[in-house]
Amino acid sequence: MTSTEPRVRDSLTQDEVRQVDMYWRAANYLSVGQIYLLDNPLLREPLRPEHIKPRLLGHWGTTPGLNFVYAHLQRQVKKRGTDAIWLMGPGHGGPSGVATAWLDGTYTEVYPEVTQDAEGMRKLFRQFSFPGGVPSHYAPETPGSIHEGGELGYVLSHAYGAVFDNPGLVAAAVVGDGEAETGPLANSWLSNKFVNPDTDGAVLPILHLNGYKIAGPTVLARMPESELAALLEGYGHRPFFIAGDDPGSMHREMAGILDTALDEIAALQDRVRSGGDRTDVKWPVIVLRTPKGWTGPDEVDGLPVEGTWRAHQVPLAQMRENPEHLRMLEEWMRSYRPEELFDSDGAPVDEAVRIVPPGPLRISANPHANGGLLLKDLTLPDFRDYAVEVPAPGTVKHEATRALGALLRDVVRLNPDDFRIFGPDETASNRLNAVFDATDRAWDERLLPTDEHMAPDGRVMEVLSEHLCQGWLEGYLLTGRHGLFNSYEAFIHIVDSMFNQHAKWLKTTRTIPWRRPIASLNYLLSSHVWRQDHNGFSHQDPGFIDHVVNKKPEIIRVYLPPDANTLLATADHCLRMRDTVNVVIAGKQPALSYLDMDQALAHCIRGLGIWGWASSDDGAEPDVVLACAGDVPTMETLAAADLLRTHLPELRVRLVNVVDLMRLQPAEEHPHGITDREFDALFTPDKPIIFAFHGYPWLIHRLTYRRRGHDNLHVRGYIEEGTTTTPFDMVMLNHLDRFHLVMDVIDHVPGLAVRAAHLKQQMDDARLRCRAYTREHGDDAPEIRDWTWQA
Amino acid sequence: MTSTEPRVRDSLTQDEVRQVDMYWRAANYLSVGQIYLLDNPLLREPLRPEHIKPRLLGHWGTTPGLNFVYAHLQRQVKKRGTDAIWLMGPGHGGPSGVATAWLDGTYTEVYPEVTQDAEGMRKLFRQFSFPGGVPSHYAPETPGSIHEGGELGYVLSHAYGAVFDNPGLVAAAVVGDGEAETGPLANSWLSNKFVNPDTDGAVLPILHLNGYKIAGPTVLARMPESELAALLEGYGHRPFFIAGDDPGSMHREMAGILDTALDEIAALQDRVRSGGDRTDVKWPVIVLRTPKGWTGPDEVDGLPVEGTWRAHQVPLAQMRENPEHLRMLEEWMRSYRPEELFDSDGAPVDEAVRIVPPGPLRISANPHANGGLLLKDLTLPDFRDYAVEVPAPGTVKHEATRALGALLRDVVRLNPDDFRIFGPDETASNRLNAVFDATDRAWDERLLPTDEHMAPDGRVMEVLSEHLCQGWLEGYLLTGRHGLFNSYEAFIHIVDSMFNQHAKWLKTTRTIPWRRPIASLNYLLSSHVWRQDHNGFSHQDPGFIDHVVNKKPEIIRVYLPPDANTLLATADHCLRMRDTVNVVIAGKQPALSYLDMDQALAHCIRGLGIWGWASSDDGAEPDVVLACAGDVPTMETLAAADLLRTHLPELRVRLVNVVDLMRLQPAEEHPHGITDREFDALFTPDKPIIFAFHGYPWLIHRLTYRRRGHDNLHVRGYIEEGTTTTPFDMVMLNHLDRFHLVMDVIDHVPGLAVRAAHLKQQMDDARLRCRAYTREHGDDAPEIRDWTWQA
Repeated sequence: MTSTEPRVRDSLTQDEVRQVDMYWRAANYLSVGQIYLLDNPLLREPLRPEHIKPRLLGHWGTTPGLNFVYAHLQRQVKKRGTDAIWLMGPGHGGPSGVATAWLDGTYTEVYPEVTQDAEGMRKLFRQFSFPGGVPSHYAPETPGSIHEGGELGYVLSHAYGAVFDNPGLVAAAVVGDGEAETGPLANSWLSNKFVNPDTDGAVLPILHLNGYKIAGPTVLARMPESELAALLEGYGHRPFFIAGDDPGSMHREMAGILDTALDEIAALQDRVRSGGDRTDVKWPVIVLRTPKGWTGPDEVDGLPVEGTWRAHQVPLAQMRENPEHLRMLEEWMRSYRPEELFDSDGAPVDEAVRIVPPGPLRISANPHANGGLLLKDLTLPDFRDYAVEVPAPGTVKHEATRALGALLRDVVRLNPDDFRIFGPDETASNRLNAVFDATDRAWDERLLPTDEHMAPDGRVMEVLSEHLCQGWLEGYLLTGRHGLFNSYEAFIHIVDSMFNQHAKWLKTTRTIPWRRPIASLNYLLSSHVWRQDHNGFSHQDPGFIDHVVNKKPEIIRVYLPPDANTLLATADHCLRMRDTVNVVIAGKQPALSYLDMDQALAHCIRGLGIWGWASSDDGAEPDVVLACAGDVPTMETLAAADLLRTHLPELRVRLVNVVDLMRLQPAEEHPHGITDREFDALFTPDKPIIFAFHGYPWLIHRLTYRRRGHDNLHVRGYIEEGTTTTPFDMVMLNHLDRFHLVMDVIDHVPGLAVRAAHLKQQMDDARLRCRAYTREHGDDAPEIRDWTWQA
Repeated sequence: MTSTEPRVRDSLTQDEVRQVDMYWRAANYLSVGQIYLLDNPLLREPLRPEHIKPRLLGHWGTTPGLNFVYAHLQRQVKKRGTDAIWLMGPGHGGPSGVATAWLDGTYTEVYPEVTQDAEGMRKLFRQFSFPGGVPSHYAPETPGSIHEGGELGYVLSHAYGAVFDNPGLVAAAVVGDGEAETGPLANSWLSNKFVNPDTDGAVLPILHLNGYKIAGPTVLARMPESELAALLEGYGHRPFFIAGDDPGSMHREMAGILDTALDEIAALQDRVRSGGDRTDVKWPVIVLRTPKGWTGPDEVDGLPVEGTWRAHQVPLAQMRENPEHLRMLEEWMRSYRPEELFDSDGAPVDEAVRIVPPGPLRISANPHANGGLLLKDLTLPDFRDYAVEVPAPGTVKHEATRALGALLRDVVRLNPDDFRIFGPDETASNRLNAVFDATDRAWDERLLPTDEHMAPDGRVMEVLSEHLCQGWLEGYLLTGRHGLFNSYEAFIHIVDSMFNQHAKWLKTTRTIPWRRPIASLNYLLSSHVWRQDHNGFSHQDPGFIDHVVNKKPEIIRVYLPPDANTLLATADHCLRMRDTVNVVIAGKQPALSYLDMDQALAHCIRGLGIWGWASSDDGAEPDVVLACAGDVPTMETLAAADLLRTHLPELRVRLVNVVDLMRLQPAEEHPHGITDREFDALFTPDKPIIFAFHGYPWLIHRLTYRRRGHDNLHVRGYIEEGTTTTPFDMVMLNHLDRFHLVMDVIDHVPGLAVRAAHLKQQMDDARLRCRAYTREHGDDAPEIRDWTWQA
């Protein structure tokens, strides 16, 4: 296979080998030191048990390989002046990230107390995986990182997200062979189909095969090399293979291969950017085989360690009890010859850091890895210009997401290089079609005459993978840009765990002063639980909210705009936010609008409020509160209010609508929470509250259990009943329909159970009549379908 | 590329072409009928608007291709007598599954009212995607399905799970080209590395490229064919390509390719089973290119439909308003020549079903697709034999999962062909090592001398992919076997959405009488939030429970055994259950044991209970209830009780431990729920309850908000504070430590705030002293580390 032939162009001088090797040895030394040492960082005295940490934590196995690639990348960056960032798939190789950042001076710039001397080195070692210190992964605390990598699978999608619209950037992304077994990583290889060589930067994947995961071999490391080459070529890459364990020849080979790969990237970009052929684009990928735990102990207690899974975490343990292990550790650390690498003060000698590029070109200092530094505010049109006409509440229908599409179209137009829309092939299905007046779907593969809205420079990123959408968007945001992820509500659970990691990243960065705020991650969840006409039960799950609200309150926001104008106001707000995750749930089907734009804006600013026009309490104390959150529950609640004013005109009903769900939490618990006094003023401390909720009903209890009125709260929501059926049948199956809500009022307002027993029967009859109609005709009864609010 | 050359061996006679084509046309006719018709199923009169459904739902695009492959598979099954099941990745092609099952008679066997005649056909058409009818996907309601496919990505992992330990089975799995873009599908191709040709069956993947997803082209369909071939070869397959739209030649070609593929599978299995070479195993894969919406309308309203994304759902709409569309529908349906396919009663003519195999060989009737039919009880050893010695509560330490490992070792031994353990490379890390005394990790790739416990017939399935583990296990269970998935707690969120789909499947099958119960899906979550010493914040998330409890109560169980013996008793129970999902959370680190086996069993049977030995209420009314769930919270709670009896000996403390979390729910809401009376008896209706919980604290509120004592309930749990640190620092950061719990008691027991103000200060001092110790020494203070319960 021609692509496996060595194509070494860059031949290192003896001096250059020495320089890159010194940097590598220094990084390895500093990595081992972090895992093991409390003190005696430069080994100026023989190692004693008290120099060793009591709890040995960290992952050595992947670290020397990471240091190796990083050293060569630094050298290339200096030589070429290329802007490069570094993504460490095996992020548990955290000591590597800390070591290399300290070596190039970035670490001391952001943490001045960790000086580049013996005392700083002692602190550096001590703090790693130590209480009150820094975590063991390539965490936000480490400069240069945009990818912690605790959870495996996302390094390539993050890297691709980072290079979109960054034509000068190279993202070097190390894929561990453990990570390569995950699903999300496996399809990330498809990302190269969405890169525009003209206006995007390049990802250089380095598949690092050290052969083992925690306790066993990896699939990719054991495949025949011909199969692996076929696989990578199948993914449209041109693979370069390098394998070995002799540092000298590995340095020479790696320098050559990296040089060639970067040349190929540059040549490919030049070709396309100068108007040349853009078919047959083959991006390079490097496959690097090194022993796991390379340069570490060969054998411990008679068992092989280097080159096996035993090198995964801490190859030598029981240091305090086992003098032989202590001796081996000292021998191991001295094998890097620290005396050559650090001067008498403990600072790296010049030659050990000669390969380091200047200032912000240092990989750990690259501003793209601290995206907030580069972030610009979006240029936003006035969202009020996109208002739909609402002559009277609840009388005309709109498709809320279609209105939003028009706004997004102009956001795309006004921000041509730092705003993208991501989604699994649902932009049109979610009725955001208007954006296609301004842009296309990004697509760098073959086009057919019947294709519509496909182009290499499209700003809508559609791939049938929530994982890729999420990963790309995260990479895009982390490097200082803006975006929106639109998805089917049920299937956003596919990225539950990715959301977790991003929310944890945001929580942590908020306490790191040198990390600048980045744009919020915006989810638009449409095609929601209540309108899965085509799809049924498998597509019905409103639980992403439940998942989200477990994360830190300062990070998370949840919005349930009931109609088109409130959606517009909400979207505008979300697009301006920083360092949060905003979940917006909105319908795409034609549905009643309730508020004109002025009312919508006022309502969204409050986040929740009484709809006086739908209430009959005349601003005084009501007999019952009807509360609602979500478009479908709002409509059913209004229809219930309508039935009540017809059948029980003397009942004082208050209608409260909630847009900003976190308003329900106590003010002490969430920054958007309202005080108990405000809560009581809206919901009353003692009157029945019948709450119709978009999601699982108990979430409302979880948010409000501390409130005085909680014992009077009765929530209806999705109770996991559903199938392929009509909209009304869906709410009926889950007891969220207007008739059930009226029956709930009758059950809970004192005295009504007797007084309105007949009405309750009537409601039950109506419910069954409507259901029978639906089952006979396959559609909802006209009285349901055509219901509107009559002022 | 040699593998793309046609290797047609089976040449159809004219009659055989006609037979398979008739079956195909019949299936297509029945599919279109389901999408469109309320009545006039055989078109015995001209189509009128009132024959058409008011809401047109369904997905035509993928359906004719599915029918095509299914027809050829039926024919091969009849010819060969091979046991085959059918997995439809594009499960939204539901009409296909219903049509083919009706054609071969299975549908009428399980739904006798849907007869094989005109009236049955009318019912068949009407019920599809109709209120009160059947869903639009290949749902559990359809015989032959084990894979609904609403969510994309899992068809191959389900197929592989089905063939493990089923040496005679072929699972034909259609992968749509939309699904092929997902992460979970992309790495499912690695599954063939885990198939033992000796003792497992075979998966035949059919990659069906119809070119489009909902609104745009697919990546795999537009890749150069050479890249696609390289990709599949890279995944260790031998691809066969077939493309076209002319039915006659496509039938001939497909018959030949399918025949060859099945021959190759048989030859490969024979070779290995007769002791021949087991390297260079290349399983066949078929790549089928057909137009999307093949045989449907070519063009509608001047726009191309067949062969484009416009064919995805319903190609003709507005049938009631647009007579031209109605005419086109009739023409389309008549193009299948129903008069040739169905007799005067509406039953399929003999020739149209001549390719159907007899009885249980019919693909829709295959018992593997109704796994409960084949399910045998596990042979289980007496779990009491694995008990750890507990001479007195809280004085000796054990690794709970290590004790479980011994039990599982013998479960493996006693059930050599229907029990497997699945996990992402964490069996040893989770200390279940004992299983390797009985078996190995399944591995069919190259072995090295340093490898341990790897073999083709291993029963531990390890791959670094929660998606694959879950998919394989589901496939294994759905075909009537047993298993366990062990995983890091935080990363089980990766399969949140897969869990959703499985729970929905189970909920639905419980109401389908002909679906027999299958073994429960058992999760063992270890390496949990409180002990992430090596990994830190990214590995800390106990929220899977929150996710799980949103599903139907009859499906879900959550267990938090506090020690080794309770874990053993819990595991035994879970391995015997049917049709549920059991989540068991247990520690792997050395931790105190509290109950001997008799006590453990009694406690687990109750699910929760008072620990009298740790209480000081002498069986009378306590001043405060200390409740706990989870191993670490239980230890902190006992330590708090210990502090209280030392410092406030007169305080009457009751300690309640919860193993079965769902006991906390009201009896009306969960089958394991206790009555209010029982709840009050345990927790009191009016005394403060300080609850130390393993997970997010509000979950306990969500489960208990209806209880009388709820206003007195104060819960501590994980509040998203964490990093790489010591066990005690972790509980301290989250206010779950013993000192905080004592402080909570002082705050909430009336009168104590004043009386024990000094103790509160002492506790706060102790907390800070321990924290300072930890931060100085990098380990927990001996008073914490060495704490035990003194009777």
